Amino acid sequence: MQILVLGGDGYLGWPTALHLSACGHDVAVNDNFARRGYDEEMGVESLIPIATLEQRLEAWTELSGNPIKSYVGDLVDASFVHQMVADFRPEAIVHFGEQRAAPYSMIDQAHAVYTQTNNVVGNLNVMYAIADIDRDIHLVKLGTMGEYGTPNIDIEEGWIEIEHNGRRDRMLYPKRPGSFYHCSKVHDSTNIEFGCRIWGMRATDLNQGVVYGADTEQTKLDPRLATRFDYDGVFGTVLNRMVIQAVLGHPLTVYGNGSQTRGLINIVDTVECIRIASENPADRGEFRVFNQMTEHMSIRQIAETVATGYPNWSGANGRGVTVEHLDNPRVEAEDHYYNAKHTALEALGLEPTLLSTTLIDHLFDVVERNRDRVDLAAIMPTVNWRATTSELPRQASELAQT
Amino acid sequence: MQILVLGGDGYLGWPTALHLSACGHDVAVNDNFARRGYDEEMGVESLIPIATLEQRLEAWTELSGNPIKSYVGDLVDASFVHQMVADFRPEAIVHFGEQRAAPYSMIDQAHAVYTQTNNVVGNLNVMYAIADIDRDIHLVKLGTMGEYGTPNIDIEEGWIEIEHNGRRDRMLYPKRPGSFYHCSKVHDSTNIEFGCRIWGMRATDLNQGVVYGADTEQTKLDPRLATRFDYDGVFGTVLNRMVIQAVLGHPLTVYGNGSQTRGLINIVDTVECIRIASENPADRGEFRVFNQMTEHMSIRQIAETVATGYPNWSGANGRGVTVEHLDNPRVEAEDHYYNAKHTALEALGLEPTLLSTTLIDHLFDVVERNRDRVDLAAIMPTVNWRATTSELPRQASELAQT
Repeated sequence: MQILVLGGDGYLGWPTALHLSACGHDVAVNDNFARRGYDEEMGVESLIPIATLEQRLEAWTELSGNPIKSYVGDLVDASFVHQMVADFRPEAIVHFGEQRAAPYSMIDQAHAVYTQTNNVVGNLNVMYAIADIDRDIHLVKLGTMGEYGTPNIDIEEGWIEIEHNGRRDRMLYPKRPGSFYHCSKVHDSTNIEFGCRIWGMRATDLNQGVVYGADTEQTKLDPRLATRFDYDGVFGTVLNRMVIQAVLGHPLTVYGNGSQTRGLINIVDTVECIRIASENPADRGEFRVFNQMTEHMSIRQIAETVATGYPNWSGANGRGVTVEHLDNPRVEAEDHYYNAKHTALEALGLEPTLLSTTLIDHLFDVVERNRDRVDLAAIMPTVNWRATTSELPRQASELAQT
Repeated sequence: MQILVLGGDGYLGWPTALHLSACGHDVAVNDNFARRGYDEEMGVESLIPIATLEQRLEAWTELSGNPIKSYVGDLVDASFVHQMVADFRPEAIVHFGEQRAAPYSMIDQAHAVYTQTNNVVGNLNVMYAIADIDRDIHLVKLGTMGEYGTPNIDIEEGWIEIEHNGRRDRMLYPKRPGSFYHCSKVHDSTNIEFGCRIWGMRATDLNQGVVYGADTEQTKLDPRLATRFDYDGVFGTVLNRMVIQAVLGHPLTVYGNGSQTRGLINIVDTVECIRIASENPADRGEFRVFNQMTEHMSIRQIAETVATGYPNWSGANGRGVTVEHLDNPRVEAEDHYYNAKHTALEALGLEPTLLSTTLIDHLFDVVERNRDRVDLAAIMPTVNWRATTSELPRQASELAQT
């Protein structure tokens, strides 16, 4: 298949492009390097050194003999998007090309507005390109489990049968997003579901859990193929960050009492889910939603798994791992019901890679090799959901340091 | 109360400002005159001549002795919004200041993106101003019944109790918006509900039916106080447009079979609903939703009401009124269940003004007085939901004429 991966230079976009290419698909990537720019803005960088997109693509051509084409440009630029889609003529567009950090969207008014306009306008432009050029193109769109919030009923995969006053309907599952970033993903879903109705678009909306892990089969082949590994308080996700804290002898920082639950997925399953979704397109006019996660754990359980995993690691120094509870900078329920369905991708063939000591050992190893690059000051949360700072003349980069 | 009306130069914003002022409130209006700009772009104008905002405000000061302050500026400009709110220090902000025509949002990619960014960013800026300056300010936000679509179950007022697999939760009512404009209102609601959770904002989200009517008690007092009356295929709403067609002897144009149902509300009830919502604020942290409509009718019923009303009018010329069915340019269900609840505003004191022959007679009279200003060519629908035109080098104004 011809598959275009938007955001193909990012943490997941890049390994997805490699995986699809390794599976024999004809892949192109798009990026505007916004993610590398956020590093500059925040004064942080990936724990694992990453090559430029040009070097990555060269390395992949050398190793695989199956070149990946690249389109450098901004999805907010409608004519660029139109030209790219008209030129590559993909059968599927995998859309990772959005600002994806909840804390980044909560820094201040400017970052909230940037996140929503960047994500919503980019996605609208992709939808218009599909509607204009070829309505058979399958849009595989990344969303997040954080769109659902923590309802007191089971979380279904995007749709729910509701019986009310003696009548029934199949309706979109009501969402309760947890940040202006999560809201932007809900906005995208609203727009895409409408696009399916008016244009007969084919769409798969993937509500992804928190991704952990550093490598896939392809990124391990050559240091130039490595993908980024973030651990800072803004872009770092919980498990990756805790592994670093354990290796450095820093307490594992748990926000609040830690009973809040997250859906999780390993990076190797993420790239496989995208392959499965792409090779099994939604029908014309179908707005299909999959919950892209394989298990769920509370933050406290994740901390315990990391803490108990560490001494088992061959390089362990015997120090105990401690857990520190910080005031939760987010606004979220801590003790709540959580039962999210995730059977659709497994029904299409996904074989889950569950969090295990072996996997955590591997992460400890990755961190150990790069421990000199860790900036401990960047690990702590810097953005508070309840505060607003848009009236202050401070720079985001200053905020991120305080 | 100190009440700031955003979009206070528009069809409903202006009469709302007058009504609130007449009721003794201290009112300010904001506008950037975007709505007058759309007239220029589309080559159409209000059936009823309207004065400039400056003339309107002067006339109101003369007549009432209760001046209305004005802030001219764009809500997309965050620092303008912040300064305005800091300067006026409202207790309630009534937010009409968005692009409000579904067909306008469906013209092409540029109009869809404009509608969503204008509406979403403006509203985010208002939310941030409230969060920064005074979280007690009550946001009274205009939405539309078109956000709900036409579900097969009763439409509740924003929230619904769902029982699922033996557990219960109160959740946001699932929406199925009918255009990129309607989507933008859903996005706003998503953002505001989140704002109520994180900042303890007070918000009332008013899902308004199709408004009809030309006058309120105040707009009738002086020609300089008149509000706009749109009948064109882009900004004109169904009942107002049909009244003009009847007076001019043009067939009443019904899209599709006409069995699609709309919630309706008279303009005099709209301004009263806003007063009621403003004087009875939502609690801190409450996201309150009212369905601002007083009755519902199918498009065919509206056409029949207009057609049978016309001969009763004293100036009737005896010509029969005919109905013409056009292919529906929208994508919507035609034969569907429709039962929308609208009890909350009535519980707070709204006394509905239902559509009657007297009211329609008055509208016939208004149109008769301005019949020389009608541009018949502007009445027909010009925007098709299924088509996209973003690849064409045509101007929106040309599109609107074809």
